[in-house]
Amino acid sequence: MTRIALDMMGGDLGLSASVAGLCRCFSSGTCSDVGFDLFGNGRLIEGEISRFPEIKSIPCEIHDTGNNVVSGGEKPSKVLKHRGTSMFEAISWVADGRADAVVSSGNTGAYMALSKILIGTIEGIDRPAIVSILPNLSGSTVMLDLGANTDCSSEKLVQFAVMGKAVSKVLQRLDNPRIGLLNIGTERSKGTDILEKAYDFLDKSKNLNFVGFVEGTDITKGTADVIVTDGFSGNISQKTMEGTIKYIVHTLKAGFSSSLLNKIGYLFCKGAFKSLKSAIDPRNHNGAPLVGLKKISIKSHGNSDDVGFAHAVSVAVQLARSNFIKNIEEMIAEIEKEMSCEG
Amino acid sequence: MTRIALDMMGGDLGLSASVAGLCRCFSSGTCSDVGFDLFGNGRLIEGEISRFPEIKSIPCEIHDTGNNVVSGGEKPSKVLKHRGTSMFEAISWVADGRADAVVSSGNTGAYMALSKILIGTIEGIDRPAIVSILPNLSGSTVMLDLGANTDCSSEKLVQFAVMGKAVSKVLQRLDNPRIGLLNIGTERSKGTDILEKAYDFLDKSKNLNFVGFVEGTDITKGTADVIVTDGFSGNISQKTMEGTIKYIVHTLKAGFSSSLLNKIGYLFCKGAFKSLKSAIDPRNHNGAPLVGLKKISIKSHGNSDDVGFAHAVSVAVQLARSNFIKNIEEMIAEIEKEMSCEG
Repeated sequence: MTRIALDMMGGDLGLSASVAGLCRCFSSGTCSDVGFDLFGNGRLIEGEISRFPEIKSIPCEIHDTGNNVVSGGEKPSKVLKHRGTSMFEAISWVADGRADAVVSSGNTGAYMALSKILIGTIEGIDRPAIVSILPNLSGSTVMLDLGANTDCSSEKLVQFAVMGKAVSKVLQRLDNPRIGLLNIGTERSKGTDILEKAYDFLDKSKNLNFVGFVEGTDITKGTADVIVTDGFSGNISQKTMEGTIKYIVHTLKAGFSSSLLNKIGYLFCKGAFKSLKSAIDPRNHNGAPLVGLKKISIKSHGNSDDVGFAHAVSVAVQLARSNFIKNIEEMIAEIEKEMSCEG
Repeated sequence: MTRIALDMMGGDLGLSASVAGLCRCFSSGTCSDVGFDLFGNGRLIEGEISRFPEIKSIPCEIHDTGNNVVSGGEKPSKVLKHRGTSMFEAISWVADGRADAVVSSGNTGAYMALSKILIGTIEGIDRPAIVSILPNLSGSTVMLDLGANTDCSSEKLVQFAVMGKAVSKVLQRLDNPRIGLLNIGTERSKGTDILEKAYDFLDKSKNLNFVGFVEGTDITKGTADVIVTDGFSGNISQKTMEGTIKYIVHTLKAGFSSSLLNKIGYLFCKGAFKSLKSAIDPRNHNGAPLVGLKKISIKSHGNSDDVGFAHAVSVAVQLARSNFIKNIEEMIAEIEKEMSCEG
């Protein structure tokens, strides 16, 4: 049986969102035959759970960590003093092999640092990458890194390509995803030395379906299934997208409420917004795998509600049920060999 | 009288778009008391102009460069062989002081390189930055660099802040714009060494209204009037925004045409889209100043139609009528002094 450890105290919306999210995930049928280890204030968790009678049929074990939580403002450098918190204990549980994946909506820096220290990284990888699944015109784009590795060598970018391929296999169900390298132009001659070196290697690799340089516009166009970039540009790109979506939604809402005619028109064509709303709703993309660790660790957004938390849990379940980690380990070893032969 | 040199042959849509754009700009009243030097095939320009009787009242001088144009695929490194083309001659005209600003929709790399070589950069600046004016919830954001300087030192970022302030003064009419430095978090401790050093300096400077680090989401939020970043992240951010807008517009259009009810509803609330359409229409933001040159040089988008070209011309006119270059020269000299005192 797959087991998932959940930090129930992590998010801004607290326990109730986590419990409701777990329940939602269970109701959707995506986590049948999964057991959960819940970390947090036992009494409060039980109280919340009692509001969802259906949750009784989920195999849940509650691990009481009282009110010990990692606060939002805490520095990741002080990670080890977080022992006893719901986050620390949930990660340890997975690190010790007692569950297959961990999910938390807590402080990103601390979660990243604790995951790295307690779980450890796959051989050849210094630091995990943050992966996100973004909507595009033909489906979705797996993009990494989104902020963990601000400075990236060519080798790291190649590793990201491999890790992106592994994520794609499980979450996009693609065996041979098209991999693009983010740059400021698609011409072969553009870009920094680091990008050129990564391009050369990716282009030669027999195991990767490399489609060359892609630009910022390609993320939502769907030119590639996996887009690889350093954590600085990736973070800025993802947040620019987030901000642009918010800006458009805000401006549209203001337009619709600006006159009675517009309000009536909106009621008529409300349905037209349905697919857009669902595609751009960040809750439907919540759950960023930290890839490169020896176990599965999923970062859920800090302000996740039940819908968002449920999605993050479903990502954890999908990865935990696959051969995700083994797959990455093998592909990283293979690519390292290829790279060392290249000199 | 302000004089503007126009490369009439540069854009993908050819001469007709440039002539119609010039005419549109003139009709809008933004270029009264401006004279134009038009570079391109004289006979064809005259033919196009004859279709716009009103253009006769604009003081235009045609400089016949025949069919010599810089093609899209040409490498910027071969810039000097472009002598005799409409682009080369238009830039030279400004470089020689015979006009105050130049506008072209031609090949970006060649235009950038020719502007740099023929016009030259202001003392203390190696390479001009590309500036764009992006929409935000409370108005607009001046953002630079958008692709010319992929690797940036702290000093360069500080120069961008100064140049952004000068652009803001003319195009946003702000004397003391809020300046933000793009990063992957707003916390003081985040970011690379280069960013930290730039932060320290900007924070201490008496002449700049520095508001600290801003994130990708802040571009459209309007947290700052001017956002400074390196050309790599800036280019990726701007193109991500462009792609996200296209994605949303495409998905919305598909939604509206998916049923009769949606189509009817759209007709009712069409007006609600008006302000959004206008705000995100790239033609209304066309005309990117290349800042850091000794003269005003404006890059118009390659596929600009008359609306886009007219906007680029109006940007050139506004900058040419102000003390833009002198303003930058003084501010750069001042900040260089401040920086050298800092050690």
